[in-house]
Amino acid sequence: MKRNDDGLAFLLKYENVAWYEEGVVRILDRRIYPVRIEYVTCHTHGEVAQAIGDMVTQSGGPYVAAAMGMALAAWEVRDQTGEDALAFLSGAADTLSHARPTTSARMEQITAGSLAAAQKAVAEGKLGLDLVDVLQEVAIGRIYDTYEKHAKIGSYLADVTPSKATIMTQCFAENIIGSYLRECHNRNYDIKVICPETRPYFQGARLTASVAKDMDFDVTVITDNMPGYTMKEKKVDLFTSAADVITMDGHIINKVGTFQIALCAQYWGIPYYATRNPDSAHEDLSSVVIEERNPELVLEAMGTKTTLPGVKGYYPAFDVTPPKLCDGVVTEKGIFAPTDLHRFFR
Amino acid sequence: MKRNDDGLAFLLKYENVAWYEEGVVRILDRRIYPVRIEYVTCHTHGEVAQAIGDMVTQSGGPYVAAAMGMALAAWEVRDQTGEDALAFLSGAADTLSHARPTTSARMEQITAGSLAAAQKAVAEGKLGLDLVDVLQEVAIGRIYDTYEKHAKIGSYLADVTPSKATIMTQCFAENIIGSYLRECHNRNYDIKVICPETRPYFQGARLTASVAKDMDFDVTVITDNMPGYTMKEKKVDLFTSAADVITMDGHIINKVGTFQIALCAQYWGIPYYATRNPDSAHEDLSSVVIEERNPELVLEAMGTKTTLPGVKGYYPAFDVTPPKLCDGVVTEKGIFAPTDLHRFFR
Repeated sequence: MKRNDDGLAFLLKYENVAWYEEGVVRILDRRIYPVRIEYVTCHTHGEVAQAIGDMVTQSGGPYVAAAMGMALAAWEVRDQTGEDALAFLSGAADTLSHARPTTSARMEQITAGSLAAAQKAVAEGKLGLDLVDVLQEVAIGRIYDTYEKHAKIGSYLADVTPSKATIMTQCFAENIIGSYLRECHNRNYDIKVICPETRPYFQGARLTASVAKDMDFDVTVITDNMPGYTMKEKKVDLFTSAADVITMDGHIINKVGTFQIALCAQYWGIPYYATRNPDSAHEDLSSVVIEERNPELVLEAMGTKTTLPGVKGYYPAFDVTPPKLCDGVVTEKGIFAPTDLHRFFR
Repeated sequence: MKRNDDGLAFLLKYENVAWYEEGVVRILDRRIYPVRIEYVTCHTHGEVAQAIGDMVTQSGGPYVAAAMGMALAAWEVRDQTGEDALAFLSGAADTLSHARPTTSARMEQITAGSLAAAQKAVAEGKLGLDLVDVLQEVAIGRIYDTYEKHAKIGSYLADVTPSKATIMTQCFAENIIGSYLRECHNRNYDIKVICPETRPYFQGARLTASVAKDMDFDVTVITDNMPGYTMKEKKVDLFTSAADVITMDGHIINKVGTFQIALCAQYWGIPYYATRNPDSAHEDLSSVVIEERNPELVLEAMGTKTTLPGVKGYYPAFDVTPPKLCDGVVTEKGIFAPTDLHRFFR
C-alpha cells in the first residue's frame, strides 16, 4: 500500500478522521469543535454507529468511522471462530451502514468492502488480532484512497477557479475543501473564502472557516440568510459545495441551504460546482431519503433556546439542487455536466 | 384623539413599543427577548438614540422610540425658554433620526412631526411639562395611527390568503404580522406559520414565532438555510415580509435573507407580499444606504463564539429584493403592483 505521510498528516489535521487503536475507536467531536477539542471514545461498533447517528462526525467522517468501526467489531469477536466472527461482522456492517439514512448506500459500499476483506482473511486462516489488523489496514487504505481522490478533485476545481477569486462554500466539504485550498495555495492563487455559517451545527463557521483560516486564507463568515446579498456585494466568483449524494441524473443532495445558494448563484451568473463522484446506487431521486433530524436542534443555538416553549422545529438535514442549477460535478475523473454523469462510469 | 384601548393593549403586547413616562423612556430589550424580559431605561434622548443604534428595538420599534425620545427631549429642557427648548428639540430630532442609517428618511418624518407639534405648542405658550405632554400625545397618536394602518394592511393581506394556508415570514413584521394573524383568526382561517429564525438576532425565532405562538397559531421555526427546501416540502402558500424601505420603483429593502427567500418563492411559484406603504423619499435605490452592523455579531450565536479568532465577519443588515420577485406591495390603501407604486400617492 502506498503511504503518503504528508497526505495522512494533512488528512488527520483537516478531516479529523476517526481512528481505531487497541480496542477503541476515537472520533473527534465535530459538534463542539473548535470551541472545545474533545473525542468520543467508542468501545463497540454499536457505539460507533450511535456516534455517527448522533452527528459526532459529519461529511466524510462517518465513512472513515464506519471502516474503523469494522476493525473494532473484529476486536469484539477476537476470541471467536471464523464463522462466528464473519456472522458478527456482517451484523456490524448492517448496523454501521444504517446509522444515518441519507448516506446508507455509500455506507454499505464501505462496510461491504471491509466485510469482503474479512472473508478473504478468514479464508486464509487469519483470525483474532490478525483479522483486526486486516480491517484496520482496510480503513487506513480507505483514508489514503480518499486523500488521492480528493487531491484530484481539488486540482480539477482549481483548474476552473480564477487565479484571483472570492469563493463561497457551504457546510464543510472536509478534505475536498482542504485539498482544493492547498492546490490553490500551491498555484499562488489569491483566494478569499466566504463561509455561510451553516445552522444549526455551524459547520461552515466552525469547520470550513477554521480550516481555511488555519491555512492562512482570508476568511469571512456570514449567516445563512446572507449568501444571496453577499454574492453580489463581495463579487463572489465561484460557489462550491461537496455532496452527500449525487444522483446519476444530476441532482445534488447536500447540506440544507445548498439549493438556495445555488439558486442565488444562478441569479447572479456565478458558477456552482459540486464536488463528489456520482452515486451509481442512485439513478434518480426516487431512491434518496432526505434525513430529518431532531427538531429541537433548530430551536437552540450553541446550547441556548431561541424561542418560546410550544413552538415546533423542522430540521431537514439536506436539500436537493436540480441539475439545472449546477455548472459542473467535479469528480476524480474530471468535471462532468450534471446531465452527463453516466460517462463517469464508462 | 380616538382611543382604541383594545388596539393599544394589542400593540403594547405584540409590538413591545417604547414608552415615555415621567422623565424616562423604557424600551423592551428585543435583543434578549423572550429568553429574558428586560427594559433599557433612557434618561436622555441621546440614550434613546444610542439604544436604537444598539438594536435594543427593531422593526417599527425605533419609530415609536424616536417619537417618545422627542417627549423625553422636551423633559430635558422643561426649565428653558421656548426658543431654547425648540433649538434643543431640533438637535434632538437630528440625533434621533440618524441613529441608524437605512431608515433615516422615515425617522426624519417622525421627528419632524414631533418638532412641528412642538413649534405650534410653543407658539400657543405651552412650555415645560405642558410641552412634554404635547410630545407624548404626538407619540401615542403615532402608535394609534400605526395600529389603524397596520390593521388595514393585515386585512388586505388576509384577503389574498387562502382560508387554509401555510405562510412563511421573515424577521419580525411587528404589529403588521400581529394584525394580520388576528385578522386571519377573526375570519376563522386555518393558518400554519413557518418562521425562519433570522440570524444573527433570531428575530424570527424570538419575536415572530413567540407572537404567533402566544396567539395560539401552529408555529414552526426553521434555520435560515431551510426556506427554499421547506417551501416545497411543507407546501407553503404565501411568503410575506415587512420592509424597512420600499422604493417608488418597487425595490423591497428588508432584513437580509428576504431576497433569497423571495427568489425561492418565485422558483416554486409561491406569491411574495411585502407589507408597507411605499417611501416617497426614495425614488429608487440610489438614495438607499444598506446598513452594515458590527461583524463580530455574525461570529457568535446567543453569546457563544462559533469560529476561530482571525476569521472575519460580514454583517449587511438588509438586502434588496427587486420588483420582479414581489407579487404585491400591501399598503394601507390596498395591494399595489411593485411597478405601480406612484398610484399610492394619487
